[in-house]
Amino acid sequence: MKKGRLEAFSDGVIAIIITIMVLELKVPHSAELHALVPMLPTLFCYVLSFIYVGIYWNNHHHMIYLVDKIDGKVLWANLNLLFWLSLVPFVTAWTGENHFAQWPVIFYGAILAMCGAAYTLLGYLLVKRSGKNSLLTQAMGHDWKSVVSVVIYLVGMAIAFYNPLISMALYVSVAIVWFIPDKRIERQILGDEAC
Amino acid sequence: MKKGRLEAFSDGVIAIIITIMVLELKVPHSAELHALVPMLPTLFCYVLSFIYVGIYWNNHHHMIYLVDKIDGKVLWANLNLLFWLSLVPFVTAWTGENHFAQWPVIFYGAILAMCGAAYTLLGYLLVKRSGKNSLLTQAMGHDWKSVVSVVIYLVGMAIAFYNPLISMALYVSVAIVWFIPDKRIERQILGDEAC
Amino acid sequence: MKKGRLEAFSDGVIAIIITIMVLELKVPHSAELHALVPMLPTLFCYVLSFIYVGIYWNNHHHMIYLVDKIDGKVLWANLNLLFWLSLVPFVTAWTGENHFAQWPVIFYGAILAMCGAAYTLLGYLLVKRSGKNSLLTQAMGHDWKSVVSVVIYLVGMAIAFYNPLISMALYVSVAIVWFIPDKRIERQILGDEAC
Amino acid sequence: MKKGRLEAFSDGVIAIIITIMVLELKVPHSAELHALVPMLPTLFCYVLSFIYVGIYWNNHHHMIYLVDKIDGKVLWANLNLLFWLSLVPFVTAWTGENHFAQWPVIFYGAILAMCGAAYTLLGYLLVKRSGKNSLLTQAMGHDWKSVVSVVIYLVGMAIAFYNPLISMALYVSVAIVWFIPDKRIERQILGDEAC
Repeated sequence: MKKGRLEAFSDGVIAIIITIMVLELKVPHSAELHALVPMLPTLFCYVLSFIYVGIYWNNHHHMIYLVDKIDGKVLWANLNLLFWLSLVPFVTAWTGENHFAQWPVIFYGAILAMCGAAYTLLGYLLVKRSGKNSLLTQAMGHDWKSVVSVVIYLVGMAIAFYNPLISMALYVSVAIVWFIPDKRIERQILGDEAC
Repeated sequence: MKKGRLEAFSDGVIAIIITIMVLELKVPHSAELHALVPMLPTLFCYVLSFIYVGIYWNNHHHMIYLVDKIDGKVLWANLNLLFWLSLVPFVTAWTGENHFAQWPVIFYGAILAMCGAAYTLLGYLLVKRSGKNSLLTQAMGHDWKSVVSVVIYLVGMAIAFYNPLISMALYVSVAIVWFIPDKRIERQILGDEAC
Repeated sequence: MKKGRLEAFSDGVIAIIITIMVLELKVPHSAELHALVPMLPTLFCYVLSFIYVGIYWNNHHHMIYLVDKIDGKVLWANLNLLFWLSLVPFVTAWTGENHFAQWPVIFYGAILAMCGAAYTLLGYLLVKRSGKNSLLTQAMGHDWKSVVSVVIYLVGMAIAFYNPLISMALYVSVAIVWFIPDKRIERQILGDEAC
Repeated sequence: MKKGRLEAFSDGVIAIIITIMVLELKVPHSAELHALVPMLPTLFCYVLSFIYVGIYWNNHHHMIYLVDKIDGKVLWANLNLLFWLSLVPFVTAWTGENHFAQWPVIFYGAILAMCGAAYTLLGYLLVKRSGKNSLLTQAMGHDWKSVVSVVIYLVGMAIAFYNPLISMALYVSVAIVWFIPDKRIERQILGDEAC
């Protein structure tokens, strides 16, 4: 029951975040084809952020699926994740409109790193709460993937001082790795006849 | 369970898409009746896109209804559909504000075609996953309607180089055909006493 | 099941409509108290529209509660209602920004009338579908209240040619009458132990 | 059932409120770091309001959890709370953009006070309806915390005439106190095996 409302609220917030990003694609006044050209970096960032938010939704979905009960700490760890996700549209638009300039790219990486850290924290609290023998604990194991992702975002932020395009390439490559939903959890769910 | 969250998230995103389109109806500064006249093409496009998004919601609703389980591929095929739907407000506003100019109309058709292709792909994956004897497979049959729609969008895009109004008429006629919910599935549901 | 998604989608759209109206309260640049004065008509219209949309949500909630099954026609009658509700933020902002000028007030009434007509149509289809002895049919009876409301909106639109403030007073008085949730249905629900 | 839709609608509205606030973080045109400096007060207000709305969602979640049935009065008391919450993005942006000027800070406090009063009223109606021996009544006790919060907001509003920063500090301190979810209710839920 309680879990249901956490899911519903998170779905609502993530659905809004993923959709309001498109409001940053300002409709050009000109009806010519070339009017779309300056929008290409913004469109690229929109696609990347859409995939990132989609990844968070997918993995959040999988992770909460294995949880039985939640408490106040989990509610706030979840709101913390939603807070950092809510800043994704801002850095997406800033990066796109400035054609991958240095500072926007650094902040893009910083927000991705905070999202990753918030997700790791939420996972840690859920695992801790559910006990050593729970399905979730077995499914999550040591969550190296999240930790390594955050490190790559930090590296990307540093590299942006030299070449922000390499940073963007790093952010894209992390997205590709995460694109595949968390096999550990999926396997657990498939082995779980309640599914 | 898992299906429930997919439905909830899709409902959320589609509800936001269908509603934020109205934000493109910029409130005129003048209080005179003629201030609404230049908005008529935008209003027309809003109505058409509202019907299109409504059609997708209805058919999505019917299709997912017959599905038992979903997996990671389906989640991403669904996000792919939501991505293309999220661009509908953009092309709607661009087409409306430029009074059915050539390039906006071509892109309107392109986004409709991508939505149609994404829906067809989602349906294909769901049918493939659910097996030959499932209700869904029997209900969907060969999904000619979706394929023909995409072909008409492509024809509409080509015709826009000569006369974009004919393209719009084609898009409207596809909407009219789809307006009727998927009888194949509805029949299946009605024959299904769980309904 | 099917009803559940109709409710969820309607809740989503109505929640967005009721909330995006507040985006029309443009934040004034000045930090002085008098900067809020020109916003008072917009704020008044926001409150009125918030109550109207709240009334529709409440009554929609009550009406769907008594329904067992829905079909394609009901889905579209429901989308029709959501379409007209989605135009409420537009006429709210237009009326507020123009301080109750004639044409905005006329269109405010027109949109309220269309919402009322769409709600009546939805109720009619649901009653027709559920049969003469259903709880809903007994609860709804002859839906004079909706019909009379639409007539008052039409009268309000006509009076706006003479004095739009009288029209606004009429719209406010209809809201007051509807403010009380549909006793007929509430009584039915209270008598229904499933509640 | 009825409670489910109240929760879903409230979740939807609160999710939208908490997310559209981020739209007030206008993307700067410059790509330089110092372009973010004038946004810091807005960002600070965004964080504070995000926490406030999160607190309301958490406590709303807990309170409704213990409720069995709702009626028309509760629906409207809930809409009243949502109305005042919907004005939070407006005062957040006004306060942030004017760097904690006197009048915006006073209105920020006024909206917080109205939210607090609306929440207290909703709790009062729910307790009254559920009877003296209900879990909710035992859990809520005398809701001093809400009352004291409203008093502090009023004090903050008065102090803003001398120094608005002290007012902001008061608003922050109330948020800190509420940050911890309502232990009274949480305890009740933990003792309730239905949880």
